[in-house]
Amino acid sequence: MCSVVRAAFLCSQFSRKATSLFSPHLRKMVHYQTEPRGRANSPDYRIYFRSSDGACISPFHDIPLYAADQQEGDVPPKKIKTNEIATKEPLNPIKQDVKKGKLRYVANIFPHKGYIWNYGALPQTWEDPSHTDEETKCCGDNDPIDVCEIGSKVCATGQVIQVKVLGILALIDEGETDWKVIAINIEDPDASSLNSIEDVRKIKPGHLEATVDWFKKYKVPDGKPENRFAFNGQFKDKDFAIEVIKATHIFWKALVMRKKMKGEEIICQNSSLCDSPFRCSDAEARAVLQAAAEYGEPLPVSSEVDKWHFVTK
Amino acid sequence: MCSVVRAAFLCSQFSRKATSLFSPHLRKMVHYQTEPRGRANSPDYRIYFRSSDGACISPFHDIPLYAADQQEGDVPPKKIKTNEIATKEPLNPIKQDVKKGKLRYVANIFPHKGYIWNYGALPQTWEDPSHTDEETKCCGDNDPIDVCEIGSKVCATGQVIQVKVLGILALIDEGETDWKVIAINIEDPDASSLNSIEDVRKIKPGHLEATVDWFKKYKVPDGKPENRFAFNGQFKDKDFAIEVIKATHIFWKALVMRKKMKGEEIICQNSSLCDSPFRCSDAEARAVLQAAAEYGEPLPVSSEVDKWHFVTK
Repeated sequence: MCSVVRAAFLCSQFSRKATSLFSPHLRKMVHYQTEPRGRANSPDYRIYFRSSDGACISPFHDIPLYAADQQEGDVPPKKIKTNEIATKEPLNPIKQDVKKGKLRYVANIFPHKGYIWNYGALPQTWEDPSHTDEETKCCGDNDPIDVCEIGSKVCATGQVIQVKVLGILALIDEGETDWKVIAINIEDPDASSLNSIEDVRKIKPGHLEATVDWFKKYKVPDGKPENRFAFNGQFKDKDFAIEVIKATHIFWKALVMRKKMKGEEIICQNSSLCDSPFRCSDAEARAVLQAAAEYGEPLPVSSEVDKWHFVTK
Repeated sequence: MCSVVRAAFLCSQFSRKATSLFSPHLRKMVHYQTEPRGRANSPDYRIYFRSSDGACISPFHDIPLYAADQQEGDVPPKKIKTNEIATKEPLNPIKQDVKKGKLRYVANIFPHKGYIWNYGALPQTWEDPSHTDEETKCCGDNDPIDVCEIGSKVCATGQVIQVKVLGILALIDEGETDWKVIAINIEDPDASSLNSIEDVRKIKPGHLEATVDWFKKYKVPDGKPENRFAFNGQFKDKDFAIEVIKATHIFWKALVMRKKMKGEEIICQNSSLCDSPFRCSDAEARAVLQAAAEYGEPLPVSSEVDKWHFVTK
């Protein structure tokens, strides 16, 4: 299925400076607008989404996986925060990850400073926790599928771009399958030269090895063991990746179209899926943003986040 | 000579955001104040220095190498600009390096993003270009001696801290000796455990190798060959480093105390060296700052500076 080769990618990494959200560059982003609530660097900070006509939407459910053209933009900044699409909040804003009441930051595992790609997810995908993967023998992690976008421009939080899928890595995180799709911004100068995982190996030597190393060690500073991988840490190719994405898209569809709730916590409220029982009105969606914390000035970030960690093999 | 083990370190790296200069943290810096002129991210941007009593000083000549206590401070941000103490301008402000009329940025050589330490120099040192080093057989590069400060806090541009000297690397840059002192902020949590280059190897595994790799390749994206090193790229120990620092301090002293100019371009104007013919009055020093560009809002930085470069061995 060729169309999945180009998918929409939602950048969920937090930039160091929340102000990047208001960068003039963002105006280039045709289809989606982001709307911050709360104070950056505080646990109540959220980034909500609107469509180009101003309707409040869920980035998880309302942004099509099969991307329309010209959704790209461009923006600078630093990428150090661990964050996520809040799957368990109405309209699924992006929020900074919180562990034990503390905002979580990506540890700098020497020689890597923060993320080494743009980190985000594919909308309209879901790694079903009740489904055991045939290959990995592990169930899904209850999140949209993650993406490492390897282009040279740093994306802003909440930016939506079109990517070309190149391959996939099967991280096993505490017994759950947590796929990492390797993809490139279709607007990247190298995009036309990159059509397979082998091309990545040739054009960006060391990047795939660094990616495995990064995921292996990134939780070690939190006192956790090194992560492991299915397929002995080998990247699977583009065709394999596309099959995984298709499967997670089908799981997502079943999630948002199901008639009865099972008490699960994923919030499926959306404003565009005609056949979904969770579709809400414009007024209901607006009410979600109205109930969110008021936007405020960013809080300062501790210099602790700059620390290097040295994790030996 | 034990006192050189602790030296003053002047951080000259530019933070991404010039606003870091106005961080409330900077007020902690007891002995020196920085004063920006011109617009950040433009060629006319300068950071001048004042002593705690407000007198305009040269960071090159007026900050003692043998640091007094409690000069430290702490501040965040990103470090990507190539800059330097402007040895050929009155009062030697810090300026961003310019090559062929364009502001210079540090290339990101994968996996390194910008600098991997705090980069700066020791005040009151000078690598004399007329002196051929016995060991390297190369002459000096006409600059103060460079320092890689390996502590975990990111220093602000112009910050002055006390460091403990641990070792030294002899980079040969286009035929000139360009020593790189390895040192640590005496306030760093690891400072008491780090007393030799071997300690660095143990406590920060991979960091010394990465340092050599960094200096070897950092000019390759500009089309230059890999840099080479004296001593086969081996780090020399603390005692060796201290001897080199002492020698560069003596060269500096001869520079600022000499009676007649030789038409050389280093500006030795200073406000504190009693026996120096280049000592100037308070009014003369103030006039230098008055003549500098007016302070203005920072200019935007191209997203080009985020690009990774892949340099294979």
